[in-house]
Amino acid sequence: MDAVVNRSSKTPLLDRVNTPDDLRKLTESDLPQLAAELRTETIDAVSVTGGHLGAGLGVVELTVALHYLFDTPRDRLIWDVSHQTYPHKILTARRDRIRTLRQANGLSGFTKRTESEYDPFGAAHSSTSISAGLGMAVARDMSGGDNNVVCVIGDGAMSAGMAYEALNNAGARNERLIVVLNDNDMSIAPPTGALSSYLARTTSSASYFKVRDIAKQLAQRLPKSWERRAARMEEYTRNLWQGGAWFEELGFYYVGPIDGHDLGQLLPVLKNVRDAKHGPILVHVMTKKGKGYAPAEASPDKYHGVAKFNVVTGVQVKPQAAAPSYTRVFADSLIQEAKKDPKIVAITAAMPDGTGLDVFGREFPDRTFDVGIAEQHAVTFAAGLATEGMKPFAAIYSTFLQRGYDQVVHDVAIQSLPVRFAIDRAGFVGADGATHAGSFDLAYLGCLPNFVIMAAADEAELKHMVATAVSIDDRPSAFRYPRGEGTGVAMPEVGEVLPIGKGRILREGSTVALLSIGTRLGEAMKAADQLAALGLSTTVADARFMKPLDTDLIRQLAQNHEVLVTIEEGSVGGFGSHVLQYLADNGLLEHGLKVRAKVMPDCFVDQDKPEAMYQKAGLSAGGIVETVRDALQLDKAASTREHRVRG
Amino acid sequence: MDAVVNRSSKTPLLDRVNTPDDLRKLTESDLPQLAAELRTETIDAVSVTGGHLGAGLGVVELTVALHYLFDTPRDRLIWDVSHQTYPHKILTARRDRIRTLRQANGLSGFTKRTESEYDPFGAAHSSTSISAGLGMAVARDMSGGDNNVVCVIGDGAMSAGMAYEALNNAGARNERLIVVLNDNDMSIAPPTGALSSYLARTTSSASYFKVRDIAKQLAQRLPKSWERRAARMEEYTRNLWQGGAWFEELGFYYVGPIDGHDLGQLLPVLKNVRDAKHGPILVHVMTKKGKGYAPAEASPDKYHGVAKFNVVTGVQVKPQAAAPSYTRVFADSLIQEAKKDPKIVAITAAMPDGTGLDVFGREFPDRTFDVGIAEQHAVTFAAGLATEGMKPFAAIYSTFLQRGYDQVVHDVAIQSLPVRFAIDRAGFVGADGATHAGSFDLAYLGCLPNFVIMAAADEAELKHMVATAVSIDDRPSAFRYPRGEGTGVAMPEVGEVLPIGKGRILREGSTVALLSIGTRLGEAMKAADQLAALGLSTTVADARFMKPLDTDLIRQLAQNHEVLVTIEEGSVGGFGSHVLQYLADNGLLEHGLKVRAKVMPDCFVDQDKPEAMYQKAGLSAGGIVETVRDALQLDKAASTREHRVRG
Repeated sequence: MDAVVNRSSKTPLLDRVNTPDDLRKLTESDLPQLAAELRTETIDAVSVTGGHLGAGLGVVELTVALHYLFDTPRDRLIWDVSHQTYPHKILTARRDRIRTLRQANGLSGFTKRTESEYDPFGAAHSSTSISAGLGMAVARDMSGGDNNVVCVIGDGAMSAGMAYEALNNAGARNERLIVVLNDNDMSIAPPTGALSSYLARTTSSASYFKVRDIAKQLAQRLPKSWERRAARMEEYTRNLWQGGAWFEELGFYYVGPIDGHDLGQLLPVLKNVRDAKHGPILVHVMTKKGKGYAPAEASPDKYHGVAKFNVVTGVQVKPQAAAPSYTRVFADSLIQEAKKDPKIVAITAAMPDGTGLDVFGREFPDRTFDVGIAEQHAVTFAAGLATEGMKPFAAIYSTFLQRGYDQVVHDVAIQSLPVRFAIDRAGFVGADGATHAGSFDLAYLGCLPNFVIMAAADEAELKHMVATAVSIDDRPSAFRYPRGEGTGVAMPEVGEVLPIGKGRILREGSTVALLSIGTRLGEAMKAADQLAALGLSTTVADARFMKPLDTDLIRQLAQNHEVLVTIEEGSVGGFGSHVLQYLADNGLLEHGLKVRAKVMPDCFVDQDKPEAMYQKAGLSAGGIVETVRDALQLDKAASTREHRVRG
Repeated sequence: MDAVVNRSSKTPLLDRVNTPDDLRKLTESDLPQLAAELRTETIDAVSVTGGHLGAGLGVVELTVALHYLFDTPRDRLIWDVSHQTYPHKILTARRDRIRTLRQANGLSGFTKRTESEYDPFGAAHSSTSISAGLGMAVARDMSGGDNNVVCVIGDGAMSAGMAYEALNNAGARNERLIVVLNDNDMSIAPPTGALSSYLARTTSSASYFKVRDIAKQLAQRLPKSWERRAARMEEYTRNLWQGGAWFEELGFYYVGPIDGHDLGQLLPVLKNVRDAKHGPILVHVMTKKGKGYAPAEASPDKYHGVAKFNVVTGVQVKPQAAAPSYTRVFADSLIQEAKKDPKIVAITAAMPDGTGLDVFGREFPDRTFDVGIAEQHAVTFAAGLATEGMKPFAAIYSTFLQRGYDQVVHDVAIQSLPVRFAIDRAGFVGADGATHAGSFDLAYLGCLPNFVIMAAADEAELKHMVATAVSIDDRPSAFRYPRGEGTGVAMPEVGEVLPIGKGRILREGSTVALLSIGTRLGEAMKAADQLAALGLSTTVADARFMKPLDTDLIRQLAQNHEVLVTIEEGSVGGFGSHVLQYLADNGLLEHGLKVRAKVMPDCFVDQDKPEAMYQKAGLSAGGIVETVRDALQLDKAASTREHRVRG
């Protein structure tokens, strides 16, 4: 298939547009050409960097129109999720760096306050824009300002409770606030939920025009005195049929739907909205994800996030995987368990592909529940299922489970309900950067009573942990695993139920003990080799469980080694903290043990290659060795040194 | 005012009703009398225990009707928040223990799965019921069951995003599920938000009847062929005006509004709903909070949660406070700061009274924002305000801040925005029990980069911390303080800005170091006296800051004492963990220091008197002394022993 977009034959306008100020010097009739060039530039850039493609292509005209009509950055333009902002970045003085997207020291794949004054609010998780925008609007009114605040939010993001909370609050207030509903009938996966069907119903059929027609004819036949009443009814009917009533009931003035790819519609409508000086207004814009790039239009889900690709063919250049992804191993393991146990069900919050539940769902469509971008509901829905004897697996990224934290505490942990949390993307996540890192789950779950918490060292372990979670039926459990592909270990035929709260020793030594939980086990093994070369006899253990702790193992490691290092891909407050607490409270720290807890650094880490992230965080073999050397105060120049175990 | 409720002169029916089975043996004509008796019994019980009164009185008839018509506990009856369940508890075999409500070893003030089979889902935080109910309905359909699932949720709870997420998901599915919207135009405070005004508008006026009338008359005048279309319009208009359209657009079949105190309306409507075998149905019931008890009807907010009171006069017996509450000190301190600094604004999520923002709001109505039960929105709204240079104070209980956790991470911490979190109810909360305990904030906030975290040892410290938070304008900050009254210390005229990350030494000794953060400082001082009596010279320090840690202080305490005990009213993963991590990583644990970290126990603690909770948790002076004795392996029989500082 030839996927080449038509390049304009006219002089490139984009070369003259470095900032929105430049853009605003163009005439309205220039804008379609500029939009075409912006689309081409976006496709070209993403073809070399990879990243989010379809979302940006869907808002090219909207991006042009908004920056043309609004006085950015004085007017605040807030992009929800903000994976659709590559065209926005190109138009806001970042075109020269657009091919560094999502790379170390390059542009972020999302809006970022520290990156540009044109990014008044950073995002990456969905549905935050209206709340932030309302805050800005209130601040403006308190300060006597007169700038506009515009939030652009997708229909998928509208399924999140947070967006509703913000609409409900904004609708009850009177600040000027413009919300652009970018309705592409698609978030990452096709959206679920009643509101989505409602929007689809109201915008996809022409029937509402017919109803308006009837109402008008009715009005003409009525006695004069009835006219005003009838007009009011017509108004309500119009809104209802256009999809506006739902928003009007929440206090917004509703405008739309309009074609988001037609600048001839966008410009006058947005201009009116800008000049209306009204309270909150919602503009309903219909767009097509991947617009203008045939492969992306045809498969919006496959072109949501892409690898590098060939612009002509649309073929993505995905590196050959040496091992299955953890996500896939989770899905396959759960399918295997679910074949044996009809009580197993799976829940995702609008991430069927990312969590592997698309695979599970093809096998068990009736046992797979996509609840929309709604982590709060997802968790308590799972709790409800658990009360009735089902075995729910809630598959949620570490970073998104933060959205359902209170529900984990209040509905699951306090009631000790056996909900199983499959926590994907735990630890560093590479190109997605700080907003998607799964840094905190060990800390925020570890403090909760009743929980069983596991972390998989490799994909075979993950399979065992899925089986183990199935077996834990009297309390909540969680198992975490990283983004990306497994280590390539041989996979067991079936997952085995692990002994709860028991770790394993992989290598026995006498001087140094490395106690790893989760993914850093391989690096710990490498570190042990390097330490051996230094003459340091090293034990390597995999805790497997953060909770309950394997206190026998910890005690043994503490008593029989000179150095004990815990290693985890998580923040302070997690596994290392729990181990230290145990050691302290049991008097195991007062006999000279040199103990260190290796955790992720106490800062938000920007996007980079995962290996570089581990390196900088000291969570690779070299970093572990360094920590041991420091603990033993080994002169770095000295190559080897004899060590004895303490008597 | 004479507030006595009329006691029925007939034979008490309530004495014959121990369970809903007994209730179902009565005739429909018996039910009004039973309801009257149930109301009296509820008032009598709460007058001796204190607790939630108004909410329960508002649902007496609804409680009777639901248990009468539905086959509980086979039919699942889920009470949202569940502070309105005292009448439910009386009817479900717990009348004999109803006067133990909220007391140690007594009934919980909320529903609780371990307490009764009639409580299929525990609650206390709002807006969870529809999610849980949908989970139960799905499980039922998967198992081929035919029981009903009924969720009762207030209009205030509808402002939470979680309720919307659940409605949106349930409306798109087809399970039989009954949601009873208990609309009393009041959650704890009068509800805010557009949906509330919408409900009020649609139910308080009779105008919708007029519109239906017009529509009917219109239909009569139309040509035959138009009739069907007109009927359809009439149907939409009816729903729109009745307040049902909003729910119907979300996929629910809407019934109502009906009078929730009229069993003559409740019984037939709920019977129809029960037998409809339809998908999701929403029944809109109008009730009055405090119904049937004059003082509570007159002041629904003052009788939401009550102390013991005199039934006749309605006068509550509040113990004389020896010191102002922490909540009040926070409010007064913030008012004092806000008078000097017009950028200070305050945000509450539907808890103006509980957080003291009612007081602040009387002084600064335009700088106080009640966003409804919407913690997610509250946090990001505050973040938006902060981007524009405002100084937002988000006053949220520790346990409710869990609802906004992702927003704290993603919108505040990652962007390092100076939102100030005033965290009330940190630590044990007494009668409200485990669901309201503020146990985890130090763990879940402590792991976040960029944060400044403080904990107040007394109310004067709180005042300083408010001033300090005002001054921190380049990153987020939080200060936590407990439920209840202060310690009675002399209050400073003005709050002083504390040096960031610096603790203070209150008492110098040489053998034992007690490093407290927050409220346990007084007990640490007492413990020091008791240790002195044992011949143990004791230093007591107040860390003030959990983040950044006062590493100089910690190092000094570790190096100059034999024992170091950290003390906090929070879970593992918090302050003690951070101190241990610092000590470990800096090689301060390997010279024989005996270190202990005293934290809240790793279990959910039921309601009790606060002092008893501290005692059991080992967080009172006695527990601290015990820990020191254990660390020093002092024979408990030995009364004193000489101790030297390590050389």
